Order: sequence, then structure tokens, then C-alpha cells
Amino acid sequence: MRIEGKNYIAGTRSSAGTVVVHSVDATTGEALSYDFFQATPEEVNAAAEAAAAAYPVYRALPATRRAEFLEAIAAEIDALGDDFVAIVCRETALPAARIQGERGRTSGQMRLFAQVLRRGDFYGARIDRALPERKPLPRVDLRQCRLGVGPVAVFGASNFPLAFSTAGGDTAAALAAGCPVVFKAHSGHMATAECVADAIVRAAEKTGMPAGVFNMIYGNGVGEALVKHPAIQAVGFTGSLKGGRALCDMAAARPQPIPVFAEMSSINPVLVLPEALKQRGAAIAKELSGSVTMGCGQFCTNPGLIVGLRSAEFSAFLEAFAAAMADQGPQTMLNPGTLKSYEKGLAALHAHPKVKHLAGQQQEGNQARPQLFQADVSLLLEGDELLQEEVFGPTTVVVEVADPAELVRALHGLHGQLTATLLAEPADLTAFAALVPVLEQKAGRLLLNGYPTGVEVCDAMVHGGPYPATSDARGTSVGTLAIDRFLRPVCYQNYPDALLPDALKNANPLGIQRLVDGQPSREAL
Amino acid sequence: MRIEGKNYIAGTRSSAGTVVVHSVDATTGEALSYDFFQATPEEVNAAAEAAAAAYPVYRALPATRRAEFLEAIAAEIDALGDDFVAIVCRETALPAARIQGERGRTSGQMRLFAQVLRRGDFYGARIDRALPERKPLPRVDLRQCRLGVGPVAVFGASNFPLAFSTAGGDTAAALAAGCPVVFKAHSGHMATAECVADAIVRAAEKTGMPAGVFNMIYGNGVGEALVKHPAIQAVGFTGSLKGGRALCDMAAARPQPIPVFAEMSSINPVLVLPEALKQRGAAIAKELSGSVTMGCGQFCTNPGLIVGLRSAEFSAFLEAFAAAMADQGPQTMLNPGTLKSYEKGLAALHAHPKVKHLAGQQQEGNQARPQLFQADVSLLLEGDELLQEEVFGPTTVVVEVADPAELVRALHGLHGQLTATLLAEPADLTAFAALVPVLEQKAGRLLLNGYPTGVEVCDAMVHGGPYPATSDARGTSVGTLAIDRFLRPVCYQNYPDALLPDALKNANPLGIQRLVDGQPSREAL
Repeated sequence: MRIEGKNYIAGTRSSAGTVVVHSVDATTGEALSYDFFQATPEEVNAAAEAAAAAYPVYRALPATRRAEFLEAIAAEIDALGDDFVAIVCRETALPAARIQGERGRTSGQMRLFAQVLRRGDFYGARIDRALPERKPLPRVDLRQCRLGVGPVAVFGASNFPLAFSTAGGDTAAALAAGCPVVFKAHSGHMATAECVADAIVRAAEKTGMPAGVFNMIYGNGVGEALVKHPAIQAVGFTGSLKGGRALCDMAAARPQPIPVFAEMSSINPVLVLPEALKQRGAAIAKELSGSVTMGCGQFCTNPGLIVGLRSAEFSAFLEAFAAAMADQGPQTMLNPGTLKSYEKGLAALHAHPKVKHLAGQQQEGNQARPQLFQADVSLLLEGDELLQEEVFGPTTVVVEVADPAELVRALHGLHGQLTATLLAEPADLTAFAALVPVLEQKAGRLLLNGYPTGVEVCDAMVHGGPYPATSDARGTSVGTLAIDRFLRPVCYQNYPDALLPDALKNANPLGIQRLVDGQPSREAL
Repeated sequence: MRIEGKNYIAGTRSSAGTVVVHSVDATTGEALSYDFFQATPEEVNAAAEAAAAAYPVYRALPATRRAEFLEAIAAEIDALGDDFVAIVCRETALPAARIQGERGRTSGQMRLFAQVLRRGDFYGARIDRALPERKPLPRVDLRQCRLGVGPVAVFGASNFPLAFSTAGGDTAAALAAGCPVVFKAHSGHMATAECVADAIVRAAEKTGMPAGVFNMIYGNGVGEALVKHPAIQAVGFTGSLKGGRALCDMAAARPQPIPVFAEMSSINPVLVLPEALKQRGAAIAKELSGSVTMGCGQFCTNPGLIVGLRSAEFSAFLEAFAAAMADQGPQTMLNPGTLKSYEKGLAALHAHPKVKHLAGQQQEGNQARPQLFQADVSLLLEGDELLQEEVFGPTTVVVEVADPAELVRALHGLHGQLTATLLAEPADLTAFAALVPVLEQKAGRLLLNGYPTGVEVCDAMVHGGPYPATSDARGTSVGTLAIDRFLRPVCYQNYPDALLPDALKNANPLGIQRLVDGQPSREAL
């Protein structure tokens, strides 16, 4: 595969700058041979302007046309072959089977958004017909539907080089909403990003999309200028709390503030309840160690906090869990920066006087070694920040609580989370039903007897949650509801049929469900 | 009516502070005799904590119970009699008939949200059933619905002392969503606020709501502590750009940033198209002068910019419009601060070398005198800030453009708006259809052959729009969609029926429409 390393602006390639950056072989740490040209301020501006120029054309296309575009992207992504997979593996140290699976997930979510576009519920079409006889005042005809907010800046994640990156969930949701995208290529997998960007551009050409519908820029520090560009109307981000918060602060300080949907930091508490421990404590210990170390623990939904009630069963579980964690081998992380952060996170846990190291070999060398810690419950009760911060990698912290009341207090001490999991038997659910409303306040997704590391892409998924899990708990970055983040409602008062969007025309030419005078209906008016 | 002037905290009255504030008779400027006790920092904290304590109880109530609460508020508001209307008139100088109408609108929107709660679409219920046989991986059962974000701080508007204030649209939307409210009483109508707060508290008691479901604080500067309080999870605001932006900045800078829905500044362009001027220029001049001066021009949707194409008809219209504006008498504004702002706004227009005064008596005395200005189109084309800022009161600015191309360029120069209006005949709509997509980008509501000052409360209304019309174009503060601002989705994975919210249970006990495996359905599963 040919990697040119030039920025993507309105369907052409641009390398006006002199700063050249490189991605590295994640396993060896060697710089790869591809040169990537850091976007100049003029190129960042041109990319945003290209998206702005494409916006009126792109958003005016019928939703079915946008669906065809997404499906063409899906086909192009599916067609990326073994040489592509090899590049991704080299840049991320993720195994080939994982990348092959992620490729299918990435094309699958493009196709799912195409379905949403055909289904038409994203329009949120509402019609209140005129009531000329109403007293004291007549009602005029009012109709509402949603349209894309405008160009969206997307920052991809390091840990999902396909599904949460160049053609990932945020890009898919924005393109589905009718919003052109300017994507900031992730510095950890720029060659991967280029292959995917090529796929998107090919799909755009094949389906006759405006040239600026997708743009991509390379380089360090170019994201700031992008977020501050007046043409950009929203931001999607997946990454660290520090990085996400910085973008939020920049966006809020713009002359025109814009929304940022940042998926950031979550420790994903897992509550192991007494009856479950009695019946299957050993199995849970084994499964949980697998979940914590799977993919080197590099998941937003990695279980970073395990909470149980003091008991003989919990002690036995802890012992089995520690043994299982001690058995887990070292793995290569996504990049040297990730490993460094992991080491820093471990050091902070080791240094805390109320945190005990239970299992794991001393962290050293070029790979991450799985670790298990136990923290005193006072850290949660007293709001110690240490436990709240995600340590990205194959480690987790156990907390033992004295009784159910302390469990509830400990949960109240948690910040917002992407997920919260109960490992429980029916008897536990009866005894601990009162935990559910607490968990609802803390997390976007509540699991029972599963592990949070799998995130299904579907209508009902929520991959979001209260701060700092995300910057806005009202959104999700996975699943079809993600499109809502990039839509805004517009109301038409007394407009003739010819000037209304198809979604609101009397004949209902799209055949979609609409809320008509307060009732859902697919009928023509 | 007895006005105690004490803060409302968890259903009791509190006057711990020593600072006493007063509202004034808007017509005479005299301070009214009621003492209002400015909330102390401890009282602000207590009000927020009361809302936080009420939240888990209140949000767990069936939606039908919340509907009964809203209907009880409506009944209490309808029962507020002539003595109440007299107080509102005294504090705002608005005429009794207007207040009576607004009372009906305020109770009406409470009842409309009760309908929304019974209809159940606000839940956004989505169910993806398990697919145990799916390859390569089975799908688990995933269900999603929405719940209230938590306690909401609401700041009411001066210009709608009932419909956008204590029990106004933001309060109704938040209470409907399951969010307790802390309301900052507007300093311009504190006695009004007390009467309405009493009505809400009576309704809460009658329907068995938790005591902290509604709280209200008086005083200057108490809003800042409220917005910064960690219990507060969202903010609703209607008022000035300066005030709204300050709240947005505070909220964004919190350790946990929260969304602010601020409805702020809009000049509501009205485009008078050639054929309409030919056929009914004189009528438009008359209607428009009525719309600009109605209610002393104190509407968020007041038409502050009139744009037409250079022609003999437009010149004739201008003459008629100037004559009609010159005929409009002075009116008393909501309060002395509003008059002062109006005078300042007029002075800036008078001082601009490219703005011409066309009609209106010299502004002086205690009332606002209607004014008409004409600005050179270069102000729009070159982005002069003067024209973008709302002058709150009975004044408007006319701009003449040379041709349709200049009209489009001028529109592109506008900031975000609540409304954009076309006054047009069918021939105009054919000739100027290309304006609609431009207006869609600029405003939340597009009107044809109407005046924007009437805002219907219904499902299809959008009272929102791109910045600075609001701080978040994805919301509306009028109409049932307003509830969305205060809801967030939660996903349940593999949860048993007993632990699911009613909206997601297999039997569909609420009988609501849900998205089941991608299809809308009211069936039980």
C-alpha cells in the first residue's frame, strides 16, 4: 500500500509544511519509514473551509444518498486486505485477528447508520397542523425536523485504530447526520489512518459526494486550531481526560462556543455480590482476570475497580483472583506513551499508603505487566482522586466494603462511569435491588453477569455517562443514538409543501413515522 | 396576597440573611413594600442540597405521578386571581389582559408536558433483544431509556413573568424530566415569583411530591453559587447575551462541567420580498410596525432587522413603515434597567455613521419611544457587531440590499437567530427558494407570512437556534422537545425484567411505543 503522508483537503492531497512526523512500530519502537506532513495553519484552515463548503451540498442530499455513501465506505473498508491489517498491527501491536474483527465492526457500524438514515427516525419529524378555528387564537401550521449542525471535528482513539478512529463511530455518526468531517489523524497510527481515509475518499468519489465531505490532517498540536476554527460546529473525541477536557475548555471559550462530545475516563466498577461469589467465585476470578487483561487492558470499559463485601467467600475470591492475575503474561501496549502512562499510574498506586499490591511482576521492560491492587474503602468514602483516575492498561483495584450500607456509600463516592456491572445471583438481586438506582446515577450502561469490555453496536447501546466518563452524559459515542449529537431541530411555520424538507411534506414521501398532532403516524396528510 | 419574601428550601421558608431586596412598581419606579431576603451562601447550598435529596425519590416516581403534579401546578396557577394579576402588572407594567393570557399559557404548558409524560415518547425506549445464535458472537439483551439528569437551576426571564419564569417552560420541562428545580427568582418580579412558587409548593404537597422538588432563592449574585454547586446538573436561562454567556462560562469551568441552555440574543430578520411588497406593501408596513412595538417590543422574537431589495416598492414601503412607526406611542418598559439598556442601544445606533434615523421621537422620560433606523448593507457584509446585537425594545433596523446575490451575502453575515421570516407571495417563493437553506443554517424557526412574536407551545415548536440566539442550537426552550435537554440515556445489559424500568419491561406495562430490534412497536415481548 502506498502511503503518501499528505493531508486530505477537499479530495486532494496537500503537503505544504516542512514538519515531518512518523508513526512507530509499536512492538520494536522503531520509526516507520513513512513521512507524514504536519498540517500548516493554512492547511488546517483549508480543511475546515472545505468541510464548510461541502456542508450545504452534503446536508441537502437525500438521506438515502448519504446511506449509499456510508455503505460504499463499508465496502471499501471490508476490501482492505492483509497488507492493511499488517500495517495496523505494526502501528498498534494489536493482533491480526483483533484487527480483522474490528474491520468488520467498523464497516458494520457504517451500514447500521445507513439503516438509520433509511428508517428516518433520526429526523424527529413532528407536525402540528393548523387549527384555524381555535379560540382565542388560531394555531398556524408548525412542522419540525432535524438537520446536521455543520462541519464536525473528530479526534480518534489510539485503542480502536479502526472502530473509534478515522472511519469510526464519531465519523459515521457525523456523516450520517449530514455533517462533513475534518479528522485529526491519530499520531499512533497514521499509516492506518491514511489507508482508511483513502477508502473514505474512494467511496465519496464513487457515490458523487462533494469533495470536502471528508478531510484529514496530520501532525501534533493541529487539533487546537481545528477546534477553534469558526466553521467547526461540534467535536467528537475519544481519549484521555486531560486531552478531552482541554478540547472542552477550548470549545467553551470560542466566540461561538460549540459542543464537545469527549469520551474520556472511566474505571467501570464491577460489584461482586455474595451469592454469586458463593456459587461461582472461582469462575468469576478467572473470567475477571481475562477481562482485565484482554487486549492488554486497553479498553475504555476495562474493569478498573472490583468491589465486594467482607466475607470468607470474598477472601477466597481475592486469593483466586490474585493467583489468576499473577498468571497473566506481559503484553505490548499501543505505543511507548501508553506504556509510560501505565507505569506512572502503577507508581501512584504503589506509592499510596492505603493501597496494597496483591499480584503482578515488577513493571519493567517494553511490555505492560498485569497488576492487582487492593485499596482501602476510605479512598472511595473520602473521595481520594487516586482511585477515580483510569489507569489505562492491564491492572485493576479491589476494594472490600464492610456491609451493604458501606457499599452504597462507596458507590456514591464514585465519579461518572461508562459502565457499572453487577455479578449476582437472583438472591443477590433481591437483596441488593436498591443498588440499581445508585448505579443509574453513576453510569451510562448497567450490566448484569457480563463483563463491560464488549460494546455492542446497536440501537440500544449507550457508550457514555456522567463526567468524567464523557463531557456530556446526554450522548453516546457507540450505537445509533450517537447521531443525535450532531443534529439540531428546525421548525417551519406556515411553509408551503414545496419548500418543506421531504420529511415534513404532506404526502410523507419518505414513508417515515412522524408525530402528527401528538400521535405517531406514517399516513400522508 | 401575603408576600413573606423568604427563600423556599425543601418546602419550608428560610430568611437567614440580613440583605433585603425589593422589587419596584414598574410604572412609577417606587420600591414595593415587600421585603425579600437575599439567600445566604448557606441557603443557596441548602436549596441545591434539597433538590439533590429529592432527586432519587422524584425521578423514581412513575411518569403519571409527575404528570399529576404538573396538572396540579396548572390548576393552582389557573386559580391565581385578580389580586395576583394586579401584582404582576405592578411589577412589570404589562397590561392585565396580557398577564391573564400568559397565565393560561403557563398552565397550558404544564398540562402539555403532562401529556408528554403519559404519551411516553420522552423515554426514547429502545430494545435490542438477545441473539444467542448470532455468529461469530451472540448478542446480549440491551435496552435503553432516558432519565432526568439531576437537579436543574433555572433563571427566569423578565419579559414573561409567568410563561418563562418561576413555573415557566424551563421549570416545566425539568420537572417533567424528573429533575428537581432550584429557581432563582427574577429581581424584576419577586412578588410575582413568590405567588407562583406558593402555587407550585401547594401542588407538590397535594400530590405528595418530595419536599425539595422545587426550591426558590432571592437576591443579587446568588445565581453564581447556584450554577457552581456540585449538585446542579444543568441550567436553563432566558435573558441577555452577557448574562447567559457568563453562566455558560461558569458552568464550563466547573470541575464537572454541566450543560447550560441559555436563550439569549436574536434580531429575528424579516425579509420582505418584491412581489409581496407589490401586492401588500402598505399592509405589511402596518402589521410590521405593530409587531415591532407590541408589548413594547419586549419579546425575544421581536423583529429587529427588516431586509428588502432596492426598488420603487421597497422605497414606498419604507415611507409607509416610517409613517406607521412614527404613529406608535411610548410605552412603559418592564423595569428601569430595561429602559436604560434600550436608551443605550438607541444611542449606539444614532452614533453609527452608516445608520440613519428614519422615525421616532427623541427618546426621553420614563417610557420607551418606538424608533426606526436604516443601516447600510455594509454593516452586514462586513460583520459589524452593532447590527448583530439585540436592542431590546420597540425599535428595528431596515437594510436595503442591491440585488438577490447581495441579499444572500447579507444573510450569511448574520449570527444565529431564533427566527427568520419571509414575507412573500408564491412568485417570490419560486424566485427566492434558494434563501431557505441559508435561513435553515441561521435560525431555529422559519416563518412564512407571519410575525415571529407569537410562539406556539406545541410538539413542533423550536424556540432555539445557533449561537448567540441560544448557547446550544440542539435544544428548544418552548414546546415539548424542551424536555430532551434534561434527559440522558441509560442502557441495561442482560437485566431481568424485575430490575428494568417499566418503560423497558417485556410486558410494556406503560403501553408506549418502543424501538424493538429496529422497528417501532407497542407490543409486549
